[in-house]
Amino acid sequence: MSQADDIALAHALADAAGAAIRPFFRARYDIETKTDASPVTEADRAAELAIRRLIEAERPRDGIIGEEFGAVREEAGRQWVVDPIDGTRSFIAGRPIFGTLIALMQDGWPVLGIIDQPISGERWVGAMGLPTTLNGKSMTTRACRDLDQAILATTGPQYFPGHSAEHFSILAGQCRDTVWGGDCYNYALLASGHVDIVVEAGLKLYDIAALVPVVEGAGGRMCDWAGDPLTDASDGNVIAIGDPARLDDVIEALAHHH
Amino acid sequence: MSQADDIALAHALADAAGAAIRPFFRARYDIETKTDASPVTEADRAAELAIRRLIEAERPRDGIIGEEFGAVREEAGRQWVVDPIDGTRSFIAGRPIFGTLIALMQDGWPVLGIIDQPISGERWVGAMGLPTTLNGKSMTTRACRDLDQAILATTGPQYFPGHSAEHFSILAGQCRDTVWGGDCYNYALLASGHVDIVVEAGLKLYDIAALVPVVEGAGGRMCDWAGDPLTDASDGNVIAIGDPARLDDVIEALAHHH
Repeated sequence: MSQADDIALAHALADAAGAAIRPFFRARYDIETKTDASPVTEADRAAELAIRRLIEAERPRDGIIGEEFGAVREEAGRQWVVDPIDGTRSFIAGRPIFGTLIALMQDGWPVLGIIDQPISGERWVGAMGLPTTLNGKSMTTRACRDLDQAILATTGPQYFPGHSAEHFSILAGQCRDTVWGGDCYNYALLASGHVDIVVEAGLKLYDIAALVPVVEGAGGRMCDWAGDPLTDASDGNVIAIGDPARLDDVIEALAHHH
Repeated sequence: MSQADDIALAHALADAAGAAIRPFFRARYDIETKTDASPVTEADRAAELAIRRLIEAERPRDGIIGEEFGAVREEAGRQWVVDPIDGTRSFIAGRPIFGTLIALMQDGWPVLGIIDQPISGERWVGAMGLPTTLNGKSMTTRACRDLDQAILATTGPQYFPGHSAEHFSILAGQCRDTVWGGDCYNYALLASGHVDIVVEAGLKLYDIAALVPVVEGAGGRMCDWAGDPLTDASDGNVIAIGDPARLDDVIEALAHHH
């Protein structure tokens, strides 16, 4: 398969996921009277099934790793990695800043990634060797001369286990501002040059894989808190940075002890 | 002036603010090379000037209290209270979940409020004696049988001064989930029945006034952390609740000492 074919399929997967998700967004759900699945769970499953159906039809030899339904053909060199709704709490709260994450990994490395926002109709696409795009328009990260000018984003304080919260707060104290919430949308906005740094902890492969081509194709970089490449062995502690010249400052701040 | 006239003017104010704001959203701004005002500051000022111009033309005897340009005719019984961009950090980070807040206060009480999102095109309107609407459709808060089923929202941990952070975290520990970020958009989503509780600290009159008619017209309630009505003398510590039957539980949790 050519890269163009894979990108076309990834678009089709995001289209199918969005169509499955939209009917459940802001569906009224009275928690106390229902025993069946919540709208977010239904949307998550419907979207992942739609994606899996298409991959099975179009790329029957590729593996699939999905957040909801696990892995098939784990031995394949090509793996589609899918998180139908990244930001389930944003989805539940009715915020249009969750996203569908779709990645293609080749021999363990993500070579193609999509961050899709099915309510606002925004789709960021990153693919090895190509510039990252938002709805077809090239995007680049922005320069950041000093941490004290940086906009830092992260999803929430409750996602930093143990002492990592203290390390994060040291970094936050050195940055211009911290914005909370956002999930995958933060990485997309970093790729578009509106956010400078995203730092999170405990992410899974399906949270991360699609982000890497989007961020790096826009000129940014992703790594773990020690500056090492993100691999299966990573602990899920992630740095995304728009201006790689500031990466050492971020690593140093996160390594600092009180 | 009839209530319908005031509502029509409030719509016109929100239209004018949105037109002033949209050109600056996601405008690229390289912090290190610029010495003039940032896009958010320019958008804030342009929107407030547009609003003030309309009020001066249409209601020359009413007072105006604006976040950017202060107060005029403070002795008037009718006061328009304006925050052109509530959620400046969301705006700066490129998130379409900031909002324009417009309120009309009559003898110190907000009788009309608009929460407008000029990027997504969502407008919540609350007016005394009328049901709250989102783009013309009636909205109601949802029931919440117990705190452990509640979605709690707040903008960020850095906005709780002193011990109020600990009080908030006791409440958060009793709720089903906490979503971070969001500013005025959280109150709008509460009015639409997707969020159950919003708790914040240190808000100003122009952050609060427009929220009250939107939340209360949808069946919710707003008060301070002691359960008292929000007045000029309030400390800006705010509770918004979708199901007033849970208000005592929230007040009790926030009053709890470690």
